[in-house]
Amino acid sequence: MSVLSDDRRLHGHLIGRQGSRADLNTPVLVLDLDVAERNIAAMAKVAAAGGARLRPHAKTHKSVDIARRQIAAGAFGLCCAKLGEAEALAEGDIPNLHITSPVVSAPAIARLVALNARGGGLSVVADDAGNVAALVAAASPDQPLEVFVDIDPGIRRTGVASDEAAVALARQIAEAPTLRFGGVQKYCGREQHIEDFAARREAIVAQTQALKATLAALTEAGLPPPVVTGGGTGTHRIDLELGVFNELQVGSYVFMDDQYLACGLTEGDSAPYERSLFVDARVVSANHGPLVTVDAGFKAFSTDADPPAVLNGAPAGAKFAFMGDEHGAVIAPGASDRLKVGDLVRLAVPHCDPTVNLYDSYHVVRGDTLVDIWPVSARGRSR
Amino acid sequence: MSVLSDDRRLHGHLIGRQGSRADLNTPVLVLDLDVAERNIAAMAKVAAAGGARLRPHAKTHKSVDIARRQIAAGAFGLCCAKLGEAEALAEGDIPNLHITSPVVSAPAIARLVALNARGGGLSVVADDAGNVAALVAAASPDQPLEVFVDIDPGIRRTGVASDEAAVALARQIAEAPTLRFGGVQKYCGREQHIEDFAARREAIVAQTQALKATLAALTEAGLPPPVVTGGGTGTHRIDLELGVFNELQVGSYVFMDDQYLACGLTEGDSAPYERSLFVDARVVSANHGPLVTVDAGFKAFSTDADPPAVLNGAPAGAKFAFMGDEHGAVIAPGASDRLKVGDLVRLAVPHCDPTVNLYDSYHVVRGDTLVDIWPVSARGRSR
Repeated sequence: MSVLSDDRRLHGHLIGRQGSRADLNTPVLVLDLDVAERNIAAMAKVAAAGGARLRPHAKTHKSVDIARRQIAAGAFGLCCAKLGEAEALAEGDIPNLHITSPVVSAPAIARLVALNARGGGLSVVADDAGNVAALVAAASPDQPLEVFVDIDPGIRRTGVASDEAAVALARQIAEAPTLRFGGVQKYCGREQHIEDFAARREAIVAQTQALKATLAALTEAGLPPPVVTGGGTGTHRIDLELGVFNELQVGSYVFMDDQYLACGLTEGDSAPYERSLFVDARVVSANHGPLVTVDAGFKAFSTDADPPAVLNGAPAGAKFAFMGDEHGAVIAPGASDRLKVGDLVRLAVPHCDPTVNLYDSYHVVRGDTLVDIWPVSARGRSR
Repeated sequence: MSVLSDDRRLHGHLIGRQGSRADLNTPVLVLDLDVAERNIAAMAKVAAAGGARLRPHAKTHKSVDIARRQIAAGAFGLCCAKLGEAEALAEGDIPNLHITSPVVSAPAIARLVALNARGGGLSVVADDAGNVAALVAAASPDQPLEVFVDIDPGIRRTGVASDEAAVALARQIAEAPTLRFGGVQKYCGREQHIEDFAARREAIVAQTQALKATLAALTEAGLPPPVVTGGGTGTHRIDLELGVFNELQVGSYVFMDDQYLACGLTEGDSAPYERSLFVDARVVSANHGPLVTVDAGFKAFSTDADPPAVLNGAPAGAKFAFMGDEHGAVIAPGASDRLKVGDLVRLAVPHCDPTVNLYDSYHVVRGDTLVDIWPVSARGRSR
């Protein structure tokens, strides 16, 4: 029995039943579809007005169903962090997949070439001459593989470290009969989460100045990049204003986790995107006054960010604290209004990407009604 | 296409091919079966010599295949943290499942009763009179549900907080025609990881004194507990020596993660169990001297413990640092012996339970040969 059919078996009978959110077995990852649809439409409008095409990042949601809605709203394709993620989206017929990390091993390159042969559009980044040589040898002139030069924005995670290296790699790609030079990628990951808008803008202006120099060097070498891809939810307004990126890789705007809600996304901080993702948990033990235990712990939330905020179901001011792999504490500020065994508590998602990766399904609601159950199509497909 | 068949499709052709561990797509969760079998046999021998029965905890491995090996080595049954985990093991015909957290909501209690009706042995803990009343009403006198009273060891996570509450709950269970009083559970989670053996022993002696008083109160009330279950990998030798628990819930001994390897498990620190679980990762970028980037990040490791240790494949003294959701840095102490793109690095698992929960499969090796691919049967089954 597959895990998906398990979630369908558990909750399928609740689909369309008013108020059914309260009857879900917990802990459960809940997507508010009304809000997500508003977020998808808002970003599509912003990108269209700014003259850049959208290739939203699937590492956030890993979902064929959400990708289809992004495509329907005008997105060109989807970005994927890993080859396995791209394979999962290709199984759902999502077009124009771009893999934002290098694919380096011989077995993985063989899978990459097979995926490219299916058609539908595929590209990958590279930052290493040996890796490009391996791609050249594996790909076919009948269906050239599109390759982007990845530029390090100073994180030292992936990307070439100099304009000279960028030019050399672009030339190696452009001259190969089995490859096609797609352009450059520069993803300024560190800048996305600078909480102050003005400070974030200043950092991105500096990164964009450096990127302009890289683009000039490539153009001077006869290798003008057709596509300049990058940007994220935290910087997309600034990227559009500066006008150097012609493709945006925004991801988290669909869900707006706490990390991004802490950042003003526009100068006036008008909060153009809203929180659409939640974990509903349930009180399983209540023998200690204002501290009760809920059924969500390290297996229900990633722990690379702050603990989840308590949104409702609990007294105002209640805090969450992890109690190990399986449980958390919800601690009310006073002894009054005690939660009882069985009560539901709605928790925020501090960092969406690795939290989504813990769940097999989205439980999709409109208001308090379960309307669908979607697989997290690329869950665990990190290789 | 199911995720499991995806791992089989990716790697099935490598099963039995000598040296095939190096050809696995990464990041990959690798189980060294020779070591795991030694750990399973060693614990079975210790428990048999100590006169307690074993009910190993499946929250660690979530695997029907490993559970079968524990049963074959003499274990009475398996513990499960959540109802969904028990359902997954029952699908693999694992007998005598004991759920170590309360099951409280109406839909979950209905599933619990259905699982009990299948036969094969099932028990659950409770710490709340309202919860027991709901169990009484839902269960059937034809197949009484076995219920244990959960005792809080001072963590305030789950469990009754006083001997009086333990007696009242035991009486409520024993008097219900649809329930059967199984005994008591006291899991001293905090004590498991006290690194110094003597300090750990002292803490467990104190907890066991308190437990003896609880057992005396129950016996005096005419409710002697048939089974006293608890203990873990960190304290099982001490628990056996003190002779109060007659059932042990050890889990991590199968894998021995870094958290437990830091604890002397016997007085002489003779390390009776060895590390059997690894994550193999691969270098995907190497443009920055002694710092290289591997393909394992927050989606490959839980982050509630220290970052993973670098075991081999890298220069001695190399350290791992997280570089976000998808990547990590491996930083060598000097510029010599640089790692190259494509090189494999073997990483330790700092905390096994939530890390295993990120993967769909174990890649099972003997030496450097892939010998099987096992599903993580209860992955994500946290509800």
